[in-house]
Amino acid sequence: MILCDIGNSFLHFYYHGKVWRESKDNLSVKDSKEIIIFISVNEELTKTLLYSHASCFDLTPFLSLDTNYKGLGVDRIAACKAIKDGVIVDAGSAITIDVMQQGIHLGGYILPGIAQYKKVLGLIPILDCEMNLGVSVDTFPQNTRDAVSFGMLKSILLMIENTSKSKKIYFTGGDGKFLSRFFVNCIYDELLVFKGMQKVITEEITSKGIVL
Amino acid sequence: MILCDIGNSFLHFYYHGKVWRESKDNLSVKDSKEIIIFISVNEELTKTLLYSHASCFDLTPFLSLDTNYKGLGVDRIAACKAIKDGVIVDAGSAITIDVMQQGIHLGGYILPGIAQYKKVLGLIPILDCEMNLGVSVDTFPQNTRDAVSFGMLKSILLMIENTSKSKKIYFTGGDGKFLSRFFVNCIYDELLVFKGMQKVITEEITSKGIVL
Repeated sequence: MILCDIGNSFLHFYYHGKVWRESKDNLSVKDSKEIIIFISVNEELTKTLLYSHASCFDLTPFLSLDTNYKGLGVDRIAACKAIKDGVIVDAGSAITIDVMQQGIHLGGYILPGIAQYKKVLGLIPILDCEMNLGVSVDTFPQNTRDAVSFGMLKSILLMIENTSKSKKIYFTGGDGKFLSRFFVNCIYDELLVFKGMQKVITEEITSKGIVL
Repeated sequence: MILCDIGNSFLHFYYHGKVWRESKDNLSVKDSKEIIIFISVNEELTKTLLYSHASCFDLTPFLSLDTNYKGLGVDRIAACKAIKDGVIVDAGSAITIDVMQQGIHLGGYILPGIAQYKKVLGLIPILDCEMNLGVSVDTFPQNTRDAVSFGMLKSILLMIENTSKSKKIYFTGGDGKFLSRFFVNCIYDELLVFKGMQKVITEEITSKGIVL
């Protein structure tokens, strides 16, 4: 069994304790005896997976979450399923922040991802500069590159801080490790979405004797 | 004398107590007896002004500010010249935030403007939605549109709050009035840049007997 989380930019795989990502234009051939259990937020990328592998299974119908949020992405649901209490920060193309309390999803919000931020500011020629991810967030910037980097980085950090307060923070996604460095009561877990998927597979499928 | 502040999107004018903005493709004819004193952060838009009016004067060389910041835009310098103490938030195509203390500029930073935010998120199809500027910033969002709007609005508010603390906030620019509603110790002054320009004209030009 191979797990696959299809995002907006990449397909993320989990198999035998290993995680890796692939682009849609360059999908590797997988062991044909293995089933790929997937979730997806992107139809185009899903098609490339379905064309590349005979045995695929969409886990989406089995994912449910106690929430009032309408239209929560399946990747966010899967990550939420992996924890009972805390704040989940999935820092990829976009940064999604979700709050869980006693197994209930209280809501969440979305910020531009670090790479997206650069694109948006690049629309104004004089602000089209490389981000300085080493910028100090404790002193006022003294040049344009730092001013832009500080605005991007500090606004993300303040939002996470304001949301988490004393709650534990679970970072995941490509920029999750970087962001986790700024917090104490947190962990970085690149497997969070896969752990949620695994939990759903155990609770909703294999424990009920359903054969995939 | 007509004052003109040339931004990245529009030319902003001040004349006889009135302010208005014009686009570069549709510049109105001004009284040829009046000199236009301008500052600019955009060369292309500057050219359209110079072609449209015979008597123009660039105030830039007369603008100076006590600061360590390298490459501070002339519009930001002009706004800073207008106050001695406080935080200036100029919310236009980009949002610039500058801190003044006893006439000294301590530094500043840059956030994407509200309209820019929408463009950046529009790069991800499922996030391509109209902002809800009426979103609550005190409860967790429960749908995608609110999640994106909350992320944009609350991150701007937290940054301004974190910077200003007990300092007075001076809002200016197109979205300045909207943002000022969220704060108590603040004013909205659409004339801030022009007041700074006027101060420089008085102190550096007319008081020295220079004839324009």
